[in-house]
Amino acid sequence: MACFRQVAVGVAAMLTALAAPVGAQSGQSGSDSEGIWITLGTAGGPVTNPRRSQPANLLRFGGKDYLVDVGDGTAGQISRVGVQSKMVDAVFISHLHFDHTGGLAALLGLRFQTSSRDPLTIYGPPGTGEMVDGLLASMVPGATANYGVAGAPPVDHRANIKVVELRGGDSVTVDGMTVTAASNTHYSFPPGSDLAQRFQALSFRFDLPGRSIVYTGDTGPSDAVVNLARNADLLVAEMMDIPLTIERMSKANPGMPEPMLKSMQTHLSEHHLSPSDVGELAHAAGVGSVVVTHFSGWEADDPRHFAYLQGIGAVYDGPFVIASDMDAF
Amino acid sequence: MACFRQVAVGVAAMLTALAAPVGAQSGQSGSDSEGIWITLGTAGGPVTNPRRSQPANLLRFGGKDYLVDVGDGTAGQISRVGVQSKMVDAVFISHLHFDHTGGLAALLGLRFQTSSRDPLTIYGPPGTGEMVDGLLASMVPGATANYGVAGAPPVDHRANIKVVELRGGDSVTVDGMTVTAASNTHYSFPPGSDLAQRFQALSFRFDLPGRSIVYTGDTGPSDAVVNLARNADLLVAEMMDIPLTIERMSKANPGMPEPMLKSMQTHLSEHHLSPSDVGELAHAAGVGSVVVTHFSGWEADDPRHFAYLQGIGAVYDGPFVIASDMDAF
Repeated sequence: MACFRQVAVGVAAMLTALAAPVGAQSGQSGSDSEGIWITLGTAGGPVTNPRRSQPANLLRFGGKDYLVDVGDGTAGQISRVGVQSKMVDAVFISHLHFDHTGGLAALLGLRFQTSSRDPLTIYGPPGTGEMVDGLLASMVPGATANYGVAGAPPVDHRANIKVVELRGGDSVTVDGMTVTAASNTHYSFPPGSDLAQRFQALSFRFDLPGRSIVYTGDTGPSDAVVNLARNADLLVAEMMDIPLTIERMSKANPGMPEPMLKSMQTHLSEHHLSPSDVGELAHAAGVGSVVVTHFSGWEADDPRHFAYLQGIGAVYDGPFVIASDMDAF
Repeated sequence: MACFRQVAVGVAAMLTALAAPVGAQSGQSGSDSEGIWITLGTAGGPVTNPRRSQPANLLRFGGKDYLVDVGDGTAGQISRVGVQSKMVDAVFISHLHFDHTGGLAALLGLRFQTSSRDPLTIYGPPGTGEMVDGLLASMVPGATANYGVAGAPPVDHRANIKVVELRGGDSVTVDGMTVTAASNTHYSFPPGSDLAQRFQALSFRFDLPGRSIVYTGDTGPSDAVVNLARNADLLVAEMMDIPLTIERMSKANPGMPEPMLKSMQTHLSEHHLSPSDVGELAHAAGVGSVVVTHFSGWEADDPRHFAYLQGIGAVYDGPFVIASDMDAF
């Protein structure tokens, strides 16, 4: 059960096990068999804040750069480790909430504008194709005018952009890694309904030669995610102070219609993980370590932050850390 | 003519005239008659870098928040002065290069996801409507799934989004300010050609009750911009170290086909402003002060940076500054 000592041990273990520098700051390529996971943006969106960028991650492995979710500002964040938009080899999108997808337009546009014609594959849940089609349509006038040079040859901005839609249970091999998707509980449409057929929120498991990494995306407690994360070396989990977020949201939207407020409350309380939920997921799956992201709550300069560490440590004995932007694991 | 003393005097004058704190850091609303111009992103795109965010500006006036260009990461940058996406009242887009538009998708998405149904007007050059239509189409699956709550009422994500396309010579009144557009030389399609009919790159003049501000957007030397900027209190001008940028671009794209490389060289050398071009524009228009943005060159920690100050000061006697991200004027 929860006690100060367990938390302290967990934090100390985390410091040695997780926070070792792995070259992110120097722009080193993740060419080893373990890969490098960089938390580009650790905020729980969609409310923006100056301390944490919107949800996005960079997985570097075998000389390749993969984005895992792509919130606002992702193109700028990857430049902090020396990666340009046109160097990204694939994008994995967990679900279609705009805090996780808002940076894709810039990524596609900046790739085009820096003359990249390299292949880019965008993996995501059902609906990803329609989203990307819209983004490519939005680029037509900009790509047609291009650099505004008389007589310049036209360039096809759609060339080499490919979408692969995944559903829970699907698995793909990408270069030397196996990526498996699970449909989680971030959406709760009635089973069999039209919306349940059309939309899924996904968690991903990345099996690299030397390490397995599971990314929850956004989810509530979910057996499918426990199964996906079974014995993974690293679990990258969302976490939210749900009562605080509801309180802040109510204050920020005093005129919100009652049905919408109720819908938001249902969403936050059923579709996200509390600190103890994160601990329970990590414990049940038997993962080796936990990185918390998509953080919404009191920051570490507030004493109330400590309760989150206690909440996780009460049920999970392994090392864990609440990540900051640009941490590398 | 250029001399060290003139530059030093210019910089000293700038420090007192331009860099006075105006409340940007405290999130203060620009409710006075002069407005506040905040340089959210001062990089010359599309190459991203960790020191300067992509092109974007915030004009705060009369309790309203207007974006002027909206590059990658704009939603995150405005949060640094306490502004959320849903608080933005209008967006002005100078031209359709993706470094100036890449952040619009996130802005629209985050507005929707934070339940804003407030009106937003997007002003921009011809093609802006088609671009926004594509972005709104890309939002259909995400907006349909919305928060994934069973039985939640559908929400129209297109509601209250309006586009107004402007051409050179057009003028609109927005709240208490008059905004005038000029077609500049950032594009050089042959006059009368199909592309010249379809596309324009714009500079904007904002006439506020207490101050006039001109934003060049991206442009080469242009009589239309000189006329637009005539006697303006503040000129916000792009500036580029063009030879250095060509050198960096060639190095970064060793395999670039010859016609594309040539097209890029033509673009950079004819469609942007050198330091002396900025000085000449400011001098010819008789502006009161100059803020340089869209900066591409050596930073102030390199001695070669000083040549830019000399280049401007050689032909312009007023105060000027090369802005950083989040400076307020």
